[in-house]
Amino acid sequence: MSSPSPVEAAPEFALIARHFRPLAGPEALGLLDDAALLTPPPGQQLVLAADAMVAGVHFLPEDPPETIGRKLLRVNLSDLAAMGATPLGYLMTIALAPATQDAWLAGFVAGLALDQAEFGLRVLGGDTVSTPGPLSLSLTILGHVPPGAALRRMGARPGDDLWVSGCIGDGYLGLRAARGEIADPDGALARRYRLPEPRITLGLGLRGLARACMDVSDGLLQDASHLCRAGDCAAEVEAALIPVSDPAAPIAALASGGDDYELLFAAAPADRAAVAAAGLAARTSVTRIGRFTTGAARVTLRDVNGADITPRKLGWSHM
Amino acid sequence: MSSPSPVEAAPEFALIARHFRPLAGPEALGLLDDAALLTPPPGQQLVLAADAMVAGVHFLPEDPPETIGRKLLRVNLSDLAAMGATPLGYLMTIALAPATQDAWLAGFVAGLALDQAEFGLRVLGGDTVSTPGPLSLSLTILGHVPPGAALRRMGARPGDDLWVSGCIGDGYLGLRAARGEIADPDGALARRYRLPEPRITLGLGLRGLARACMDVSDGLLQDASHLCRAGDCAAEVEAALIPVSDPAAPIAALASGGDDYELLFAAAPADRAAVAAAGLAARTSVTRIGRFTTGAARVTLRDVNGADITPRKLGWSHM
Repeated sequence: MSSPSPVEAAPEFALIARHFRPLAGPEALGLLDDAALLTPPPGQQLVLAADAMVAGVHFLPEDPPETIGRKLLRVNLSDLAAMGATPLGYLMTIALAPATQDAWLAGFVAGLALDQAEFGLRVLGGDTVSTPGPLSLSLTILGHVPPGAALRRMGARPGDDLWVSGCIGDGYLGLRAARGEIADPDGALARRYRLPEPRITLGLGLRGLARACMDVSDGLLQDASHLCRAGDCAAEVEAALIPVSDPAAPIAALASGGDDYELLFAAAPADRAAVAAAGLAARTSVTRIGRFTTGAARVTLRDVNGADITPRKLGWSHM
Repeated sequence: MSSPSPVEAAPEFALIARHFRPLAGPEALGLLDDAALLTPPPGQQLVLAADAMVAGVHFLPEDPPETIGRKLLRVNLSDLAAMGATPLGYLMTIALAPATQDAWLAGFVAGLALDQAEFGLRVLGGDTVSTPGPLSLSLTILGHVPPGAALRRMGARPGDDLWVSGCIGDGYLGLRAARGEIADPDGALARRYRLPEPRITLGLGLRGLARACMDVSDGLLQDASHLCRAGDCAAEVEAALIPVSDPAAPIAALASGGDDYELLFAAAPADRAAVAAAGLAARTSVTRIGRFTTGAARVTLRDVNGADITPRKLGWSHM
């Protein structure tokens, strides 16, 4: 009936201490308190987003542990990029199988540490629980913008150009490559699927320039239709202009596949040179793929002859 | 090959719109953007916490949907209470079975709406995904405190009193009642398990008064040992002083059961009247159950004769 010694504390606490404390900034209070204490940047608005990922649904259970946490962090960073926000920090909850190996957790945390350094943010808090189901992760990210400077989905107007960053369809091709369904000799496609590239620098450069912006997470065409609904206008996308890494792949599949995490945005034709300069400054390619028009809020995909080749399924649903 | 009409958007979006948009404040931008935009209260520090819950681990799958989201919200509110913070808003991610019924979601959201009104906060964002595993929820809460006013776990000193709010062990008894293992004629115990009472008002009243504070989530004794470690001192708890609703239940089980969500705090003996007044003002009972002493950071449970009756297992692990 003697008191347990301090070292006999519940295994959860030892696990958190060993793996996650090194990721935490001073605001996290060593992950020892009930909450984190953050002094927000004075005069700034906070930008807040949350995303969840489930093994077998949003990533492959056999994906390297180093990439799993990073993918969720990058998906959330992409939401900050879409708002033109600067990253600040994040909280993450993890539902693990009870028998998760220490080596798996070490890899998971090592991946997060790399991205914390790359994107300049720190973990502020979280929770680790057990689940009889698949590994599930949830992440809330915080960023900041000057008041009124955030990029929004609403704001596209008829006559605006429709732009996209990077390359579309690599998320779709990368998933197929990771599953071994298509050739991927140097692993570049699978890497794109596992580690999307949030366009933080480009998002910052588009402040005051993009009239509407979002990130492509559910398929280029579906996400373009969101910009249409938010701006109450239509959009025409020229299939031949969509930047793709594999011209032989079916364009409808690439343009409706998910997981691209590129920025999709509207800008005035007068700002074409400024948008190109913002892309150069961010070392991120930007491509004009169509335009907004008057009409019902829908997106139309056109081939080189102007024929409507819009697929029935515009994108991917999380449900 | 014609474009789908706007009403054919992916079901996830319709679901979010129908159920969650009414819960959202203006900062959530109608849940239509990539992130929420929040202007933090000027000059305040933000208090941030995250918790996850899994069906079958943290709540019973057959619990009423009205209580499931509220429990997670209240568990997070309890973290704010423990820091002496005022609630501001929250983000929630939900991993649902693909066939979740609309009525279940309606109940889930109706419960959240009640607590949003009761505790004065709004949903800022989130994500809804599907899982082949059990229903899993994750919530990040935001609150605020004046700079330096947050209650912390560190700060207890030898000679301080150890206090607890409310009643200890009802979470444990409530779980047993909800499982049908013990009698609960009016359902009060099961209700306590499903809907803990976050002590927000008491937490605010303890600012400047409690030298250390946390909420009892993993068992009174285990959580008291956290205050010991954070304050580098020992604690003696008198079993006979612990407030319990069922004096016939084994005290070791009540004091090491989880899910109480009461505040456990240290205060100077000179402040006994002030602590009692804070309890009265918050309409929350507060009970002095022991004291901090010098010595190794551990907690000892004593019977009326002073004998050490500390159980081997001080509390509950989430892993």
